[in-house]
Amino acid sequence: MSDHQNLRVVLASRPVGRPKSSDFRFEHAPIPEPGDGQVLLEIQTLSLDPYMRWRVSAAKSYAPPIEIGDVIVGGTVARIKASRHPDWREGEIVLSESGWQRYALSDGSGLRRLDPAIAPPSTALGVLGMPGFTAYGGLLNIGQPKPGETVVVAAASGAVGSIVGQIARIHGARAVGIAGGPEKCAFVKNELGFDAVVDHHAPDFAQKLAEACPDGIDVYFENVSGHVWDAVLPLLNDFARVPVCGLIANYNDDPSTSSGPDRLPATMREVLARRITLRGFLVFDFTDAQEQEFQRQAAQWIKEGKLRWREDVVDGLEQAPQAFIGLLDGRNFGKLVVRVAP
Amino acid sequence: MSDHQNLRVVLASRPVGRPKSSDFRFEHAPIPEPGDGQVLLEIQTLSLDPYMRWRVSAAKSYAPPIEIGDVIVGGTVARIKASRHPDWREGEIVLSESGWQRYALSDGSGLRRLDPAIAPPSTALGVLGMPGFTAYGGLLNIGQPKPGETVVVAAASGAVGSIVGQIARIHGARAVGIAGGPEKCAFVKNELGFDAVVDHHAPDFAQKLAEACPDGIDVYFENVSGHVWDAVLPLLNDFARVPVCGLIANYNDDPSTSSGPDRLPATMREVLARRITLRGFLVFDFTDAQEQEFQRQAAQWIKEGKLRWREDVVDGLEQAPQAFIGLLDGRNFGKLVVRVAP
Repeated sequence: MSDHQNLRVVLASRPVGRPKSSDFRFEHAPIPEPGDGQVLLEIQTLSLDPYMRWRVSAAKSYAPPIEIGDVIVGGTVARIKASRHPDWREGEIVLSESGWQRYALSDGSGLRRLDPAIAPPSTALGVLGMPGFTAYGGLLNIGQPKPGETVVVAAASGAVGSIVGQIARIHGARAVGIAGGPEKCAFVKNELGFDAVVDHHAPDFAQKLAEACPDGIDVYFENVSGHVWDAVLPLLNDFARVPVCGLIANYNDDPSTSSGPDRLPATMREVLARRITLRGFLVFDFTDAQEQEFQRQAAQWIKEGKLRWREDVVDGLEQAPQAFIGLLDGRNFGKLVVRVAP
Repeated sequence: MSDHQNLRVVLASRPVGRPKSSDFRFEHAPIPEPGDGQVLLEIQTLSLDPYMRWRVSAAKSYAPPIEIGDVIVGGTVARIKASRHPDWREGEIVLSESGWQRYALSDGSGLRRLDPAIAPPSTALGVLGMPGFTAYGGLLNIGQPKPGETVVVAAASGAVGSIVGQIARIHGARAVGIAGGPEKCAFVKNELGFDAVVDHHAPDFAQKLAEACPDGIDVYFENVSGHVWDAVLPLLNDFARVPVCGLIANYNDDPSTSSGPDRLPATMREVLARRITLRGFLVFDFTDAQEQEFQRQAAQWIKEGKLRWREDVVDGLEQAPQAFIGLLDGRNFGKLVVRVAP
């Protein structure tokens, strides 16, 4: 494969259950030429995020599915390689939605200039980008943690969960993380500064979670569902809030064929008896004004050392399918990105 | 049995599944004598409500369970038969929480004087009481219907559901009821004035509900769960609100042994993709100020003919256990009360 060609990853077939390599196809194509009012983007970094599993599925969702043969969607950091657009200059670094490919054209809409002086550009895909704002908006708008309350978040070493716990602490709450394996747990406790962390692989996970939450759970930021939800449910306090952000444990399953037991009655019973709020959200639901407020605050918190993050960098667009499959298995460690340009 | 004795219904054994007559025991006792500062209440009407199924269960709930041998709890309308309390006079009609018995003592706390000029006293157990305020508080605080939106409520001929739909219409929304059988459906449409009604016994119930909600569902007031929820879920619009008030279809089941399929993943998926709010509530959660506002508004709506209700009256405390079992089976038609005193 030559760097003088474009390389694209397109959807070859809709994944059934866990995606397979063969659901993705690599295509070579000439590097496109920008027309009047267009720029040519050279992708530097591609973000891999769990929501992409929804977008390659045919099931009804919040956005139309990607069609077979389409380039897989995704947030990207890109360098402007050539510009025929008056507002954009060659060499500028921008945030774009160019998806799984090396080169893309843009008419400038949706591009955001990035300032490497504030933070490395790839943070625009993580702590300062969609995952960070997802954590901020979901936690503050729906979770509404109060000082002294207990906030629990799963996938706590991941792109969203890591930010949720740190913002909870900034707001005076107690942050309890759930992560998979001792290495991630140590990172959550020692590097991110959560008050406690529990390994969901432990055979006595539910018991350990109860011990880590002696005052119950006031906010559970839902990223995963599955057996984590079963351990959280009996610990939820009266008037607990559950922002529902992701359900990664379910993403490879067809919900219409889930075998028993039926866990809905127990969930609804607790929702009623404990007067719990479950509320789904997407990052697009929050206002632009709030996004600007988030950008300002997060940059400040980073400067003050209050907000940390970890990137899990995979080298080469060729690795994107395997890395994405691993993300759905929980094999990433931190915000997963692909370094597309060397 | 003599009317010159007290008759009480106590919990004989905790129901497993559907309650049986033998879970209840009748006890005779002398009519108690009021001491200084007490009144003797002669119960006229006993309210039967689904929440009582929770209170006779040992499972963790919002209130401690009734113990074996205790009188079953319940709202009552009573006449003051004798008073040794300075604030209460013989002959006054009051709302009390005296439970399943003919006579009870009270020190006056929790009693509310009823004015038969506004409405028949038994409405204090229904449209002007706990069920009415449950409908009002849950619909307006959590459901927040806007003019033109579609509000769906099940058990639509019942004590709470009938009020939910009528208040939804007063607020400019479209009310769609779900009820069991042609007689109840005709009542909901013709007497209560709902915009549409669907019979959940119909083999094509889900299809009929979809046809009755051509613009989807914005508010679903949850009284029942079960197969009604399965039909509602795919119709919920983006940002739909689901006040969770009751789950009568589940009350006789042990949630820990529910067989499959597992319906939780499909529910959580819709909560996320459609950004749905599920929120449990109990009537005690709302403020006294709001209850007074409700009392004022509901009395006004009744005067204007905008709020109707139907009572299902069972004669004699001896019938209470069977009537309660029937309530859980959906066999009542309107607000279920027991006429205790002839």
